[in-house]
Amino acid sequence: MTTSYNRLDKDNAAVLLVDHQAGLLSLVRDIDPDRFKNNVLALADLAKYFQLPTILTTSFETGPNGPLMPELKTLFPDAPYIARPGQINAWDNEDFVKAIKATGKKQLIIAGVVTEVCVAFPALSALAEGFEVFVVTDASGTFNELTRQSAWDRMSSSGAQLMTWFGLACELHRDWRNDVEGLATLFSNHIPDYRNLMTSYNTLTNGK
Amino acid sequence: MTTSYNRLDKDNAAVLLVDHQAGLLSLVRDIDPDRFKNNVLALADLAKYFQLPTILTTSFETGPNGPLMPELKTLFPDAPYIARPGQINAWDNEDFVKAIKATGKKQLIIAGVVTEVCVAFPALSALAEGFEVFVVTDASGTFNELTRQSAWDRMSSSGAQLMTWFGLACELHRDWRNDVEGLATLFSNHIPDYRNLMTSYNTLTNGK
Amino acid sequence: MTTSYNRLDKDNAAVLLVDHQAGLLSLVRDIDPDRFKNNVLALADLAKYFQLPTILTTSFETGPNGPLMPELKTLFPDAPYIARPGQINAWDNEDFVKAIKATGKKQLIIAGVVTEVCVAFPALSALAEGFEVFVVTDASGTFNELTRQSAWDRMSSSGAQLMTWFGLACELHRDWRNDVEGLATLFSNHIPDYRNLMTSYNTLTNGK
Amino acid sequence: MTTSYNRLDKDNAAVLLVDHQAGLLSLVRDIDPDRFKNNVLALADLAKYFQLPTILTTSFETGPNGPLMPELKTLFPDAPYIARPGQINAWDNEDFVKAIKATGKKQLIIAGVVTEVCVAFPALSALAEGFEVFVVTDASGTFNELTRQSAWDRMSSSGAQLMTWFGLACELHRDWRNDVEGLATLFSNHIPDYRNLMTSYNTLTNGK
Amino acid sequence: MTTSYNRLDKDNAAVLLVDHQAGLLSLVRDIDPDRFKNNVLALADLAKYFQLPTILTTSFETGPNGPLMPELKTLFPDAPYIARPGQINAWDNEDFVKAIKATGKKQLIIAGVVTEVCVAFPALSALAEGFEVFVVTDASGTFNELTRQSAWDRMSSSGAQLMTWFGLACELHRDWRNDVEGLATLFSNHIPDYRNLMTSYNTLTNGK
Amino acid sequence: MTTSYNRLDKDNAAVLLVDHQAGLLSLVRDIDPDRFKNNVLALADLAKYFQLPTILTTSFETGPNGPLMPELKTLFPDAPYIARPGQINAWDNEDFVKAIKATGKKQLIIAGVVTEVCVAFPALSALAEGFEVFVVTDASGTFNELTRQSAWDRMSSSGAQLMTWFGLACELHRDWRNDVEGLATLFSNHIPDYRNLMTSYNTLTNGK
Amino acid sequence: MTTSYNRLDKDNAAVLLVDHQAGLLSLVRDIDPDRFKNNVLALADLAKYFQLPTILTTSFETGPNGPLMPELKTLFPDAPYIARPGQINAWDNEDFVKAIKATGKKQLIIAGVVTEVCVAFPALSALAEGFEVFVVTDASGTFNELTRQSAWDRMSSSGAQLMTWFGLACELHRDWRNDVEGLATLFSNHIPDYRNLMTSYNTLTNGK
Amino acid sequence: MTTSYNRLDKDNAAVLLVDHQAGLLSLVRDIDPDRFKNNVLALADLAKYFQLPTILTTSFETGPNGPLMPELKTLFPDAPYIARPGQINAWDNEDFVKAIKATGKKQLIIAGVVTEVCVAFPALSALAEGFEVFVVTDASGTFNELTRQSAWDRMSSSGAQLMTWFGLACELHRDWRNDVEGLATLFSNHIPDYRNLMTSYNTLTNGK
Repeated sequence: MTTSYNRLDKDNAAVLLVDHQAGLLSLVRDIDPDRFKNNVLALADLAKYFQLPTILTTSFETGPNGPLMPELKTLFPDAPYIARPGQINAWDNEDFVKAIKATGKKQLIIAGVVTEVCVAFPALSALAEGFEVFVVTDASGTFNELTRQSAWDRMSSSGAQLMTWFGLACELHRDWRNDVEGLATLFSNHIPDYRNLMTSYNTLTNGK
Repeated sequence: MTTSYNRLDKDNAAVLLVDHQAGLLSLVRDIDPDRFKNNVLALADLAKYFQLPTILTTSFETGPNGPLMPELKTLFPDAPYIARPGQINAWDNEDFVKAIKATGKKQLIIAGVVTEVCVAFPALSALAEGFEVFVVTDASGTFNELTRQSAWDRMSSSGAQLMTWFGLACELHRDWRNDVEGLATLFSNHIPDYRNLMTSYNTLTNGK
Repeated sequence: MTTSYNRLDKDNAAVLLVDHQAGLLSLVRDIDPDRFKNNVLALADLAKYFQLPTILTTSFETGPNGPLMPELKTLFPDAPYIARPGQINAWDNEDFVKAIKATGKKQLIIAGVVTEVCVAFPALSALAEGFEVFVVTDASGTFNELTRQSAWDRMSSSGAQLMTWFGLACELHRDWRNDVEGLATLFSNHIPDYRNLMTSYNTLTNGK
Repeated sequence: MTTSYNRLDKDNAAVLLVDHQAGLLSLVRDIDPDRFKNNVLALADLAKYFQLPTILTTSFETGPNGPLMPELKTLFPDAPYIARPGQINAWDNEDFVKAIKATGKKQLIIAGVVTEVCVAFPALSALAEGFEVFVVTDASGTFNELTRQSAWDRMSSSGAQLMTWFGLACELHRDWRNDVEGLATLFSNHIPDYRNLMTSYNTLTNGK
Repeated sequence: MTTSYNRLDKDNAAVLLVDHQAGLLSLVRDIDPDRFKNNVLALADLAKYFQLPTILTTSFETGPNGPLMPELKTLFPDAPYIARPGQINAWDNEDFVKAIKATGKKQLIIAGVVTEVCVAFPALSALAEGFEVFVVTDASGTFNELTRQSAWDRMSSSGAQLMTWFGLACELHRDWRNDVEGLATLFSNHIPDYRNLMTSYNTLTNGK
Repeated sequence: MTTSYNRLDKDNAAVLLVDHQAGLLSLVRDIDPDRFKNNVLALADLAKYFQLPTILTTSFETGPNGPLMPELKTLFPDAPYIARPGQINAWDNEDFVKAIKATGKKQLIIAGVVTEVCVAFPALSALAEGFEVFVVTDASGTFNELTRQSAWDRMSSSGAQLMTWFGLACELHRDWRNDVEGLATLFSNHIPDYRNLMTSYNTLTNGK
Repeated sequence: MTTSYNRLDKDNAAVLLVDHQAGLLSLVRDIDPDRFKNNVLALADLAKYFQLPTILTTSFETGPNGPLMPELKTLFPDAPYIARPGQINAWDNEDFVKAIKATGKKQLIIAGVVTEVCVAFPALSALAEGFEVFVVTDASGTFNELTRQSAWDRMSSSGAQLMTWFGLACELHRDWRNDVEGLATLFSNHIPDYRNLMTSYNTLTNGK
Repeated sequence: MTTSYNRLDKDNAAVLLVDHQAGLLSLVRDIDPDRFKNNVLALADLAKYFQLPTILTTSFETGPNGPLMPELKTLFPDAPYIARPGQINAWDNEDFVKAIKATGKKQLIIAGVVTEVCVAFPALSALAEGFEVFVVTDASGTFNELTRQSAWDRMSSSGAQLMTWFGLACELHRDWRNDVEGLATLFSNHIPDYRNLMTSYNTLTNGK
């Protein structure tokens, strides 16, 4: 009963960042805010690092949902940016789907706020159209753990793969030798424990 | 390996509220009572808002299980109301199934107390008859988390989709432009964090 | 080693509601939002019910901290309302202290957001001036449990009494016979489990 | 995509109680001991109540694993009792399997200590031989939650249905009218919250 | 800086069981119901075992608060039983205080539902009159942990000693030799882990 | 709907220990360090005990990831030891796969740090090549529970079996009579509760 | 019974940062690493912002404890820096105490790793010499919550005041009008929820 | 308001290990067994390392409580060993108190099972006789957290100092220079994270 391994390939993957908006972020209570902010920025940094086509979308930026996290705007100044006029499922927005298809990628890495809506809806739509879907669970947030578990179950049952940003980076990078320093810097900036290891290591080896 | 997306459709969905009775509610300990009460009323409000056919049923109202939550009676004065004479699985009650079939809907949204019995039994029966089943996990309660996880596993393994009321509302609504104010009011009444966003937003924009 | 019992006396107590503002509420993560909203409104309702002099104060309503919860404005239209121009410790605002002293009460019931600042600072100031201080711990919120525990320790060490709204109501009421229906209504509106008890009880006894 | 509902049938179900021994019980740390003892006795009581054929088995009673819980011996004096000489998977013991097959039942309700061994191994063996397997998750215990979750995943992936004793009782009973008092007594003896409901109800209605 | 050890003395202690009523018990959510029921009955059993004068009191038995747990009535048929007509603080009821003073004891062991009211109020009153107060924290229950912590802080700050039923039993008994079997039976009936130890021990030593 | 039981067979299983390195271990925060160290050593001891072919591999031992846990080196002095020059997925290293294939075993028992990378990647690769994969969940660690749950879901969905070291030992041993003392020693060294049982048992029976 | 309020005064306070070293940080497991890193940097930033004299000290930087967090070195290039040759209690180091006394401040704000040693020991020593001590509980870390609670109890019992960095900043600042932008920037950099409030606020008000 | 610092002095301290017996250990559920075993052995090792006079005592070794942990017997072959014939509070046993007084020490370090009895009773007795008492909270265990918190509150209120074994070791050692290797070995044997630091450090520096 051999299973195929749908492995992330940096030449075949695109990143969708859905509704990481200042107002909606205040709804996220299943992950501590310091950790969540770090996870979202780590995902953004890795999208940048691996030069993955990245698409931004928001829902009602001018209402209570609030504007996109400014850091994301700054990191992806030239990315397709779809401010949806009303569609809750981003996949219902033609421009969004067009932008995805324009990348020519078949693997979609999705994160957003809130998990069971802004992530799950386009994930299920994408799966139904034959894309491989990788949900970045730790860069997606929602109201509480019960909601998260329900959303994960629905997505996983439909074939989405649940991953976290660190595993994503590792699966995309494949081999440290492709760029030791680049990956180490990414980890050092977003994993305090890893930074500590590097600090101690560098101190001990630099002095030689 | 394309998966079909069984998406909620407000023209094809009915809501089943099973045994939200005053006595049974005191058995619910996997969700905090303030939150649980809010979730049940939010589900009821959205059934109302989307004008989904809604069916109420109870088990032994005149015994220790107690009467239906009065708020539900008030909200759905004209809904089919099946006070079951003894069947534990509501689906074993012919009137209940008749009422469901009379709606002509193929998507059933189910919530109740307690999850592994009043929700799981009719969910499994409905799936066996070919209905699509959407369990509202946060408007269903039971004794403790271990019981909930067992119940979810059983239902999910049989094909039920696990959702929470907020995701339900969003999937049914599809597009904010269908009625911004209506949906926002629903959220504001049942999500304190969303209400806070709206309070701040309205104050800042009303003064212009 | 007899201890004196500083017992709440409805004729000698005033309520201070400090900075329950829409923006600041989004910082509260040590209590679930449904429960917290309920606790704050329960405290407000009991202040009303016992006709305790109540004082509202806010910090920078026109900035990101946001406006006072509208429900509080509505409940206390005639209460002293001190929009502080900048003082973080409300006790540093002369109008606030004047309003308190004008009540002639020696027992101060304090709740606010966030606990270690908006509650602790005036609590410590009031204790230093000889007031008896009762902190309503469940109507006060802050960033996380670690912060709450630190704040409680500081206040308790200085002589503040830590209470929750239900204990407050009971200590103020003293005897159910003073008004059975009034107190029961308060409880029924803010304690779902108590409401369930009343629903079952009323159904069983009304039918007689 | 209709799913069949493998529903428990009291005329087609047998109960297997595996290794609830005094020594092994001290290894159980994923469920509080007061609750766990209650769950095991509740399961035993319901086996008795529904007159389900019940089989007891132990592993090394004379060693540190210790003797079977005396309550179980007392409740099932005439049940097949297989003190296994060494087989860890009870299904590897011929007498055990013979005893099961002698019942002629196709639905096996299994509980034991520890979950990932004494329950999972016979469960997987039984599934491989075509039995329907119902694991009583709350009458099965193990070292910690991580172990439990792993064991559940392994069993559920192989087709076992995860249930708790209360759901079991309800699915077997089908209709309260089959015996209101019997079921109510079972619940009252093992669910303190239900007993409270009955106490209040009986007091209010007996006085009429 | 020597501290005096206010040690429980079985000849100088009385037990007060306050408001363990069927309705109020459904409010208790800081302790699991199986464990809580066991703790209350363990306390009752030890009061009986040490022949401590025990006083029962209830609040509004005929209303939604419900009747006293029947087990307590059965265990203490001749104990003073004060059904308070309305006083929330049992100490405000003259009969209750009279009953206490009639015992001639100076050490009061108090448990009740809910902790911050039915326990804390009489505890603070008793301390103010010079009694030594021992709160049985695990036989007292309330809405949630936050409330419990507040209540403990208030009582401890006033000089109450926080204990659990097991420690109470041990401090009262002083020496196993006073009655090995009696104490062991008490523990075996209320501590599943201890019962397991005894089962294994007895099996191994009886066979000699 | 019979399911096959992929049962561990000590003659057909090999153990892969992936990246249990001093630096990486400081990243593990989903399991307490005392428990985790014990689990890893228990797995190593059982591999030794059952004489399972065992393969060690590390990633960048000379960098911040740090050297392999010295205990593992000591326990398996002659095991294949693949210090990978850069491949993150150990399966991408030819020597590693060769070493596995050289064992001729079809069942792979995998543990490592961190779970979603060092365990999941080779697990998915091995499944894709037709191996049976048994993940030792309690001897694999990662950043936090959310990450663990995502990793488990991904592996389980692909057909990996989730087990813990104790279940592994039991499934491999099959029958206590194969070697009572050996297995008991393994348990006694790694399960404090089991050691306690044996201490009491031996004391009581040795004196005979 | 008036209590004095030992209020922080920015003209009378110094900050002691004790042993925030790369190796020791890997021991901290009572606070999530993302949050802990943020708290330490927030404390450092506020020390800078309020221009409080700040003293750095480390223990065995050249051994496994590792070097000081580089960020702290960068932020305080001119601060007294005492690399202790062996004293575990920093107060046993004369240079450290001299540096403190040289500031002329009587209020000491202390944070460090690990809490029960590097923070508690100098805190107790300082209290014994008559200083006011403010422990920054969320910028101090240790092995687990049990250890933290023990350490807090010991320090609080000796008169130390437990605070978190946010309360510290507020008590030092006293009045927003002293510098609205400076304080808001500090909060925005270290409190994601606050940053979100400001993002939404600025977007809505800038467009006017 | 200067506080005296009751600092541990290795020349004035004795260690009391109370009832760490195989049977009683199975009652401990407030600390994970792997961690608890490690803590007890760490305390024993440090008593040995600092050559503190150590006294062992047990309660009913020949009954279900079981024999002392064999490791403790082995570590302290010549220590006073008081097998109490029945006294629950070890301080009620004259031999125990004589053994303590024979050491001539005024600082007592106490650990035991269970916390609220075997630790708290002698701690309170010792405080009442003027000893300084240091409770080793992480080498003392009991039924659950609620019980532990009650026990800590009682002991702390009477003047006992709550510490954990690591803090104890550090306060006794005072200065690393007294013996770097000895202390580092103690830590390495009982703190996996510290061992990891040393492993990495030694590898990097040994190669020089």
